[in-house]
Amino acid sequence: MDAMMMGAMSKDMMSMPGMESMDMAVMQACMDACSACEQACTICSTQMHDCAPACMNCADMCNTMMRSMMRMQGMTPASMMAMLDACIAMCQTCMDMCMEHADMSAVCKMCAQSCQACMDACMAMKDMMMASA
Amino acid sequence: MDAMMMGAMSKDMMSMPGMESMDMAVMQACMDACSACEQACTICSTQMHDCAPACMNCADMCNTMMRSMMRMQGMTPASMMAMLDACIAMCQTCMDMCMEHADMSAVCKMCAQSCQACMDACMAMKDMMMASA
Amino acid sequence: MDAMMMGAMSKDMMSMPGMESMDMAVMQACMDACSACEQACTICSTQMHDCAPACMNCADMCNTMMRSMMRMQGMTPASMMAMLDACIAMCQTCMDMCMEHADMSAVCKMCAQSCQACMDACMAMKDMMMASA
Amino acid sequence: MDAMMMGAMSKDMMSMPGMESMDMAVMQACMDACSACEQACTICSTQMHDCAPACMNCADMCNTMMRSMMRMQGMTPASMMAMLDACIAMCQTCMDMCMEHADMSAVCKMCAQSCQACMDACMAMKDMMMASA
Repeated sequence: MDAMMMGAMSKDMMSMPGMESMDMAVMQACMDACSACEQACTICSTQMHDCAPACMNCADMCNTMMRSMMRMQGMTPASMMAMLDACIAMCQTCMDMCMEHADMSAVCKMCAQSCQACMDACMAMKDMMMASA
Repeated sequence: MDAMMMGAMSKDMMSMPGMESMDMAVMQACMDACSACEQACTICSTQMHDCAPACMNCADMCNTMMRSMMRMQGMTPASMMAMLDACIAMCQTCMDMCMEHADMSAVCKMCAQSCQACMDACMAMKDMMMASA
Repeated sequence: MDAMMMGAMSKDMMSMPGMESMDMAVMQACMDACSACEQACTICSTQMHDCAPACMNCADMCNTMMRSMMRMQGMTPASMMAMLDACIAMCQTCMDMCMEHADMSAVCKMCAQSCQACMDACMAMKDMMMASA
Repeated sequence: MDAMMMGAMSKDMMSMPGMESMDMAVMQACMDACSACEQACTICSTQMHDCAPACMNCADMCNTMMRSMMRMQGMTPASMMAMLDACIAMCQTCMDMCMEHADMSAVCKMCAQSCQACMDACMAMKDMMMASA
């Protein structure tokens, strides 16, 4: 994500109740991982392997997760936690399906890696939110 | 949702492991409630009240929820439960914000009602899934 | 689309410059056709026939088209025309691909019909806008 | 966009009829510009200035444009051209609205710059496609 845009967003965020202690680097990493995962899943879904529906679901959820972080004014800690859990669950499902043919498809392997990275970034968000609560 | 399309989808679903006992009427009601909520939230967000970011978040999540139910081949019971919980949380957040100005805005009032209906439909899905597990 | 929500939206629209003569029935029909087409394409894409990427593209465009009509405050006549042309082109592409196996797949046949209906509704929007310009 | 994923996608693309001469660097630049514009518009829309509906429309269209390029198997030259024109029109509309308060809002100014960059990238795609047709 663009540094200038992130700066502008960060300033806004800091003035929101309960968000003062939000670590913007963790959030930026999570938005970037969601964006990368949406792209990997979208490409993987065009291969028409049996992981395709899971990839499409995961792509949509990652995009929704990313946008929700960009619109924190419309989130609460509770809805944020539920969204992160759902995003982690969708990445897990997609990764499991892609890993079944990671040996025969380099794209599935890359998609699974993007899912793992996105899960890790969402978990880091959860840890950060729990530490600052 | 279109009856013919629902019929075609239903036939597919019945042949998926663990989905034989899925009540398609409950699922259809949930997809319709998600679609209606996405539309209500999208319109509500154009009013530029302070609920707008919550409405945009809720619209995106309702669309993602609906699509996930249309692509059950890419879902597991666990990811379905997590998604339903997240959708319920987003509808709750949006409804709470819209209810703060439901007296002065008929659109906010309608949006809050759509959120409530969507939450109810998602909870019915959860109940059905737990009963058939 | 919900009648109450359409009424609220309609009132808003009438007060926008250049929109006074917008026929809300034509616009409502177009939004409904976009929504139905998004759903049909999403289901069709899970079949993993070679139309799937076209179906996914068409589903995304129909959703974007529908939302743009719900947020007319952010549209101009020129951007509206370009969007309608793009939506028609995507429906045409999807329909052509689905029609190639309409004989062997009832879902592809229904998807093609939804695309045709969406194209017709978008063309009706264009006609209405040109007549009122 | 991730280099490995781009490589995998590029290989696929080269084997598609009519795509052999597609310049992948131009396409990658366009996908990246769409992604950046979606993000800038999403953040800008939370400011609740009167550009917000245009920003939301533009964000959705940029995401749909990006995904369509990732699913070229479902595109034709004609639908690609129509989509690029629509994306350019939406960026133009959003940019015009954001430029009206670029003096008082740094976010609007950045959003307008992202729109301009996305328009330029879409025009480069059109030029490339016309040169190779």
